[in-house]
Amino acid sequence: MIKNVVIIGAGNLATQLALTFQKNGILVKQIFSRTAESARELAGKLNCDFTSDLSKLQAEADLYLIAVKDSAIREVLENISLDENRLIVHTAGSVPMNILDGFTRNYGVFYPLQTFSKNREVDFSIIPICIEANHPSNLMKLQELADKLSRSVHQINTDDRKTLHLAAIFANNFVNHFYTIGENLLQEKKLNFDLLKPIILETAAKIETLRPADAQTGPAKRNDQTIINAQLKMLQNKPELQKIYSFVTESIFQVHQKHNHDLL
Amino acid sequence: MIKNVVIIGAGNLATQLALTFQKNGILVKQIFSRTAESARELAGKLNCDFTSDLSKLQAEADLYLIAVKDSAIREVLENISLDENRLIVHTAGSVPMNILDGFTRNYGVFYPLQTFSKNREVDFSIIPICIEANHPSNLMKLQELADKLSRSVHQINTDDRKTLHLAAIFANNFVNHFYTIGENLLQEKKLNFDLLKPIILETAAKIETLRPADAQTGPAKRNDQTIINAQLKMLQNKPELQKIYSFVTESIFQVHQKHNHDLL
Repeated sequence: MIKNVVIIGAGNLATQLALTFQKNGILVKQIFSRTAESARELAGKLNCDFTSDLSKLQAEADLYLIAVKDSAIREVLENISLDENRLIVHTAGSVPMNILDGFTRNYGVFYPLQTFSKNREVDFSIIPICIEANHPSNLMKLQELADKLSRSVHQINTDDRKTLHLAAIFANNFVNHFYTIGENLLQEKKLNFDLLKPIILETAAKIETLRPADAQTGPAKRNDQTIINAQLKMLQNKPELQKIYSFVTESIFQVHQKHNHDLL
Repeated sequence: MIKNVVIIGAGNLATQLALTFQKNGILVKQIFSRTAESARELAGKLNCDFTSDLSKLQAEADLYLIAVKDSAIREVLENISLDENRLIVHTAGSVPMNILDGFTRNYGVFYPLQTFSKNREVDFSIIPICIEANHPSNLMKLQELADKLSRSVHQINTDDRKTLHLAAIFANNFVNHFYTIGENLLQEKKLNFDLLKPIILETAAKIETLRPADAQTGPAKRNDQTIINAQLKMLQNKPELQKIYSFVTESIFQVHQKHNHDLL
C-alpha cells in the first residue's frame, strides 16, 4: 500500500496533487523542483522536505510521482538514482508509459484528467484519474491510491490516454482560448467580459443533460450565410481569427449536415 | 408600461422568453408561428391564443416581440399589418435595429445574451439583456420590462451588439462544437464522454475568478512541438480537424507570446 510519496515537480498539477495527497492521509515526504524557490514554496505549504538536486531524492518512498512538463520527464529519469525496485509514475496524458522502461522495474501512469491552477482548489473526488502500470500488483497499488482521492478511477492504456488528452485539448485548451478571443473582441469595444460569463457557464452546464451535438445552435449549424459573411467581414483586420472562424464554421456545418443525415 | 405581449416565433428563444414573461406577470396574449403545430404547442404551455397567420395578430398589445431566425425578420415585418404606433422589437444579436424602420414608429431591440434550448429552463435573472430603442420613451419601456426579468440589463447600440454576438459565437457556438469534437474523438475509441465532463465544467468555472488568458494551459501555450506534432499526426485522417488544430494552436501561441511580451 502506498503510504507516502516523493513529488517531482512544483507546478500546478504537482501542487494540487500534493495538497490532495496530504488531505487524504498520504504523506508527502519531499518535493523536488529544479527551481529551489518553487520547491521551498510548495514544501512550505505541506510542511515537508524539499530539494532542487535530483541526486538527493529521499531513498525510501512508496511512490515517486513525476509531475513536470512532458519534455522534462526523460531528463528527470536520467538523473535520478534510486533502487531499481522503486515505484515511479508519470502524470502526463500524451507520454507513453514505456518511457519509464529501463529506469525501474516498477512503473506506471497516474493521469488526472483536469485543468489545474496553482491557487485554485479543485474537488478531486470527481476528477477522472486514469491509471496504467507495468504489472498487476503495481496497478492494484495505484488503484488503491487513486480510490482514496477520487470516485472516478479508470484503467486506461497509453493509446486511449493519448486520445483522451487530445479530446481534452479541444474541450479545455482550445475552448479556453476561445474565451480569450471573446474577451479580446469585447475589450476592443470597451465592453465588459462579464456580459459573456452567463453564456459560457450555461454552454458548459448544458452538456450534463444534452449531448453537445444536440445542444449546437447558431449561424454555422443553420448555414446562415448572411450572418457568417457579416461576421467574417467584422474580422477582416484579424486574418488569423478569420481563418479560425471559417474552418470552425465549416466543421460545424459538415458535422451537422452528417448528423441531420444520420437522423433520416 | 408593458403589461402584455404578442410573441412572433415559437423556437427556443421564443419559448423561454414567453415562459419568463408569464412567470413575471407579463401577459402573453398570443403566439405566432408559421408552423401551426409549434404555435399550438407553445400556446398550450401558456394557455393563450395562437395563430399561424400573420394577418391575424391581435391588434392591441403593448409589445410585439419578434423571435424568429434572423433571415425571417424582414418577411415577418412585411406581412404584419398593425397600427403604425405599435411597439415592435426584434431579439437578434446581429441584426441592426433600423431593420424595423418604416414598419412602425416605435421600435427597438431586446436581445438576451444566452443560449436557449426548448426544454432546458434557464435562470433569466442573471442573463444580460441588451436593449436599444428608437426613442427614449421606448427605451424606458424596454428597460422597465427587462428589469422585471433580469438584474443585468444593458443599453447597447447596434454596433456593440454585433460585437457581443460575434464574441458569443466564439464562446458558445464554437466552444460547444469543440465539445462535440471531443465526444467524437472519444466515441471512435469507445471511451465515455463522461470522462471529459469535469474538465469542461472546470474550464468554464475558472473564468469566474481568472481572466481566460491567465487560465490558459497546454502544449500550444508552451509551444511544446513534440506533443503538437504527435497530436497532429493522430488527426492525419481528419484533415478538417488537423486544420482547426493547427490554426488554434498557432493563435494560442501568438496571443501568449504577445501576452508574455506585454508583461515584460
